[in-house]
Amino acid sequence: MKISPPSTRLGWIGTGVMGRSMCGHLIQAGYPVTVFNRTREKTTALVEAGAKWADSPLEVAKQSDVVFTMVGYPDDVRATILGDQGVLKGLQNGGILVDMTSSQPSLAIEIAVAASSLGLHSIDAPVSGGDIGAREARLSIMIGGEESTFQDLMPLWTLMGKTIQYHGKAGAGQHCKLTNQILVGGIMISMCEALLYAYRSGANLESVLTSVSSGAAGSWSLSNLGPRILRGDFKPGFYVEHFVKDLGIAIEECKRMKLNLPGLEICEQLYRTVQAEGDGRLGTQSLLLSLARRNQIQWPANQATP
Amino acid sequence: MKISPPSTRLGWIGTGVMGRSMCGHLIQAGYPVTVFNRTREKTTALVEAGAKWADSPLEVAKQSDVVFTMVGYPDDVRATILGDQGVLKGLQNGGILVDMTSSQPSLAIEIAVAASSLGLHSIDAPVSGGDIGAREARLSIMIGGEESTFQDLMPLWTLMGKTIQYHGKAGAGQHCKLTNQILVGGIMISMCEALLYAYRSGANLESVLTSVSSGAAGSWSLSNLGPRILRGDFKPGFYVEHFVKDLGIAIEECKRMKLNLPGLEICEQLYRTVQAEGDGRLGTQSLLLSLARRNQIQWPANQATP
Repeated sequence: MKISPPSTRLGWIGTGVMGRSMCGHLIQAGYPVTVFNRTREKTTALVEAGAKWADSPLEVAKQSDVVFTMVGYPDDVRATILGDQGVLKGLQNGGILVDMTSSQPSLAIEIAVAASSLGLHSIDAPVSGGDIGAREARLSIMIGGEESTFQDLMPLWTLMGKTIQYHGKAGAGQHCKLTNQILVGGIMISMCEALLYAYRSGANLESVLTSVSSGAAGSWSLSNLGPRILRGDFKPGFYVEHFVKDLGIAIEECKRMKLNLPGLEICEQLYRTVQAEGDGRLGTQSLLLSLARRNQIQWPANQATP
Repeated sequence: MKISPPSTRLGWIGTGVMGRSMCGHLIQAGYPVTVFNRTREKTTALVEAGAKWADSPLEVAKQSDVVFTMVGYPDDVRATILGDQGVLKGLQNGGILVDMTSSQPSLAIEIAVAASSLGLHSIDAPVSGGDIGAREARLSIMIGGEESTFQDLMPLWTLMGKTIQYHGKAGAGQHCKLTNQILVGGIMISMCEALLYAYRSGANLESVLTSVSSGAAGSWSLSNLGPRILRGDFKPGFYVEHFVKDLGIAIEECKRMKLNLPGLEICEQLYRTVQAEGDGRLGTQSLLLSLARRNQIQWPANQATP
């Protein structure tokens, strides 16, 4: 499929904080875009920018050559794509489905098989880079599925991302995203634990960040979330509940692949604890609050009197 | 004390891979330096550069105004500084001891008390930045002890380091270094686990590194050690056995401070496992080999057939 505006018709399902920015870039590039979202109000800005509303994933698909989905949980992915009113029922022969939700590799494979049997193409393409990356079109997009379809979609990837990487057959994009989340998990634990250690030792935390941020202990998370933690800012960049979903999927995949990763297991437990304690809608840095409670530490900490 | 070459006489004890570079910078700046090391041959290059050999820490101290120690384990620190032939027995009134070994905060306090009772000054100043940082004088130096002594030593810190940070009273430098090591530990676990996950999922690991290195999963370790792991290079930047020492000290301090850090505890266990399996003299990235053995994975992995 040759993709170019305005002849290629796009569809976008799921216009949350990530999806709305990504979809906006496609509209801005001149593509005709049809949108659907469970909460219709979240499509208002896109419709004002030129998108057309449709009443279901099915209706979006009927009017599109390529449909993107960016929804919440694997169950949402399943309903949106494979359901009775789902995308695969509406695409015409040769149409392409691109699921950008962080979801299960096994579900990505199931979708690919279903799509193929209908003469359709499917791609899994989860992203990292957060709301800022989405807004600035600097996402890392991790792509699995048929390589020729990945290549066909290149004009669209470059509108949304900066690091565009093909990883192999269906599910490979999801596996790469899970790899990313395993990395993030260990970094978050050690960041929160290290800051609590430093606090309990009586340290000035700003001074500690100065000493440790630029060397072997340095990380994106420490540079970006460390200062937020110090000023008591636990607002979501990335929701705890979404991270719990991703870690849970990673654990499922490990069980399936008979892989024992002890760090991942404790990470998943700790983040489920954060969620159980009621902080699922805070940012992932709020693991610190949970570990602080466990250790009878008030936070934000009064650094004068640890 | 006003410190400047050539009137200020320096001593250096411990000329391993870190110490010899750091001491070399002091010699190059024009200071008269007396050196001692358990294995005398490791001082040869420094003596050729102008340093004078002495037969014991005591003898070094007798000929120095400021003595640096950079040795291995807390027991070595204790013997070198507090022992019968130790530094504190040799320094004259007003002399300064600077321990740059990564060691116990409690021992740093003990040394500071002993020094003070003798009319001496002591500073704990562990570093991060590794052999390259030592060679290029780009270390992060984390300093505890009397602030005026820290200030007096400024002409010397700047010869060895780039990030020079005072952290408070005796032991505060050591606490900061332990904070650094807690951070590194979580990053190492998640890096090794993530690479094994990716491998077992059938991924091309180079492609995965491309996707995950620059975003929220990014870290110094992933950028610097990830590529080494992929090519099967487990040579030490930083020895497993030294990391086990640091993590063990961090755990001791947590017990003393009644602080429960579940991630640190699993990290210390995993690295003790690496050491028990015989890899104590490999680099910290060899945690991957231990986790690979546990999961019956051969490494370096033939990525074509996971």
